[in-house]
Amino acid sequence: MEKVFSCPLKGSAVTDVYFSSGMDSLLSKLKGYGDNVFFVFDENSAKLFTELPNKSIIITPGEKEKNLKTLSMILDRAFELSAARDTLFIAVGGGVVCDITAFASSIYMRGARVVLVPTTLLAMVDASLGGKSAIDYLAVKNGVGTFYPAEDVLITLETLNTLNDKEYLCGLGEVVKHAFLSSDMSLFEFLEKNSERILKRDIETVRKMVQLSLEVKIQFITADPEEKKGIRSFLNLGHTFGHALESIMDYSLSHGEAVAWGLKRALEVGLNKWITSLSYFERASSLIKLFPFNADYKVNECDIDRYIRAMRDDKKKSNGSVKFVLLQEQGKPVLMELNDEDVKKVVIA
Amino acid sequence: MEKVFSCPLKGSAVTDVYFSSGMDSLLSKLKGYGDNVFFVFDENSAKLFTELPNKSIIITPGEKEKNLKTLSMILDRAFELSAARDTLFIAVGGGVVCDITAFASSIYMRGARVVLVPTTLLAMVDASLGGKSAIDYLAVKNGVGTFYPAEDVLITLETLNTLNDKEYLCGLGEVVKHAFLSSDMSLFEFLEKNSERILKRDIETVRKMVQLSLEVKIQFITADPEEKKGIRSFLNLGHTFGHALESIMDYSLSHGEAVAWGLKRALEVGLNKWITSLSYFERASSLIKLFPFNADYKVNECDIDRYIRAMRDDKKKSNGSVKFVLLQEQGKPVLMELNDEDVKKVVIA
Repeated sequence: MEKVFSCPLKGSAVTDVYFSSGMDSLLSKLKGYGDNVFFVFDENSAKLFTELPNKSIIITPGEKEKNLKTLSMILDRAFELSAARDTLFIAVGGGVVCDITAFASSIYMRGARVVLVPTTLLAMVDASLGGKSAIDYLAVKNGVGTFYPAEDVLITLETLNTLNDKEYLCGLGEVVKHAFLSSDMSLFEFLEKNSERILKRDIETVRKMVQLSLEVKIQFITADPEEKKGIRSFLNLGHTFGHALESIMDYSLSHGEAVAWGLKRALEVGLNKWITSLSYFERASSLIKLFPFNADYKVNECDIDRYIRAMRDDKKKSNGSVKFVLLQEQGKPVLMELNDEDVKKVVIA
Repeated sequence: MEKVFSCPLKGSAVTDVYFSSGMDSLLSKLKGYGDNVFFVFDENSAKLFTELPNKSIIITPGEKEKNLKTLSMILDRAFELSAARDTLFIAVGGGVVCDITAFASSIYMRGARVVLVPTTLLAMVDASLGGKSAIDYLAVKNGVGTFYPAEDVLITLETLNTLNDKEYLCGLGEVVKHAFLSSDMSLFEFLEKNSERILKRDIETVRKMVQLSLEVKIQFITADPEEKKGIRSFLNLGHTFGHALESIMDYSLSHGEAVAWGLKRALEVGLNKWITSLSYFERASSLIKLFPFNADYKVNECDIDRYIRAMRDDKKKSNGSVKFVLLQEQGKPVLMELNDEDVKKVVIA
């Protein structure tokens, strides 16, 4: 595999990001980690391997499994295998497997080691890099977790071929978000020009897209590794809207679809409040339209109270108020409190 | 309250340690934290307050409650109270309350704030300072946790009067350990000279003892905040022996008693293996004897396999081997692997 980035994170931690096209180089990289390892798969990612390592656990896929019970199963298995503090936890899977394995490794004996092998587009561009680990807790998405950067992130583009269209689309939501947040237009224009090749999953196009997307994310997280300076929280663009929708739809919606939907809501509120320029609103909305997101979905009036409550429970709140990320223009996010009326105006049918 | 130490810890974190004699100054310090707080008590520490704050939870006391279920109850209550990431978790109690509250705060929304109010001698000299948070997991003491330093530690010596003799003695085990590990003899000699006043809990003598004890601990943890350099692990003197005894006795033994017992075992192994000098062995053994520890207790032969297994499961192991801390002489700890025979020789009747 080829090392593409070295991303400095919390404290002296550095995450190295490796790319490869095919499974062979992934397998030889994994072999290089030696024997003191503990693999976490889900039922989907386990299918990528013809032979599974003995020291492993296979969890049920899906956001619903990203909970305390699954966390506990992973920890149980690690203790059963007599994993030590220097054991390397290796997560192979989508965002759920990466987030929960990173969390388990961060608390196992006060911190084992962890490597992430994201196998979905969403995990490649979002969950794998940045050191956020989590489970969902009660109704709160990522309500419990740690900041705990992986040592390495191994991206193998071939694994994307195992995703169905909905799963693949899910990752594109975060990519579009990064396109909006970037200080330059390179990712935005790349998406405008290559949307068809991207939807066909042309491997070289996807590789370039993932790289450009990670470059944007790296800018934000290295400037604010523990989300204490307000910079990293700009990566929540679309998320406060999106998380609440995921929550009231009981996670039947994919995360990326919810984010794409939330991006559109953030643009609409921005326009309504004279924060986002009309020209940027239009160009950004057009970019969202190039991909088959259901970004114009509206919440039923009878569900709106539940929606607002879920939003208020969102973890980004500080001192009781919920801050939203809105866009002034390309690469110029701002944080803003919104009242319920502002939100309802863009959410209800 | 009076600020006595500022202890630099992990990353840029600093823990400030405050002392007071009486409850009044503690209460006014707590009031100063404002309204965005969440208190965790146990049934004992709750009795220290005539009026309990509304935003609080009271847990059942005892090492057996330092588990995933209690952790989950604390998190549930924090979410129920809509605590945010900037909410201050305040633990009031012994080591269990401090350890589990620090852990809960460290993972609540990826890290809330935490202040510890240790009310037992053990928690004052051990659990409160150093940033170790944990729960016990399966049979492994502190098997799951994080490094997460408290912002402040508030020590109120008056609270020690509520302890029974066994609880008070428990803390003295760690104090004696610090006396052995210190690079000078000040704590050691202070204990030799003042053991009676200490056992009578004379408040000024105890204050001096706690301060001297914390000074030793601070030296070790600031040199190695995340136990990565091998320096901090010297604080495990007596613990590998002691933890295993706690484990096979199902935590009916207090932690400090187990540590005192383990200190004696470490001295005996050290002597047997020509590591500890006979003169130091004798002086150190005499110091242990000044306090009513059951340091000459022996494990039944029929329990020895269970004991050895518990020891091998201890979290200090790295790459499958268990390292013991032994003492060459005052303030000169060394790490050493021991085989089962070495251990049995000093453990079995």
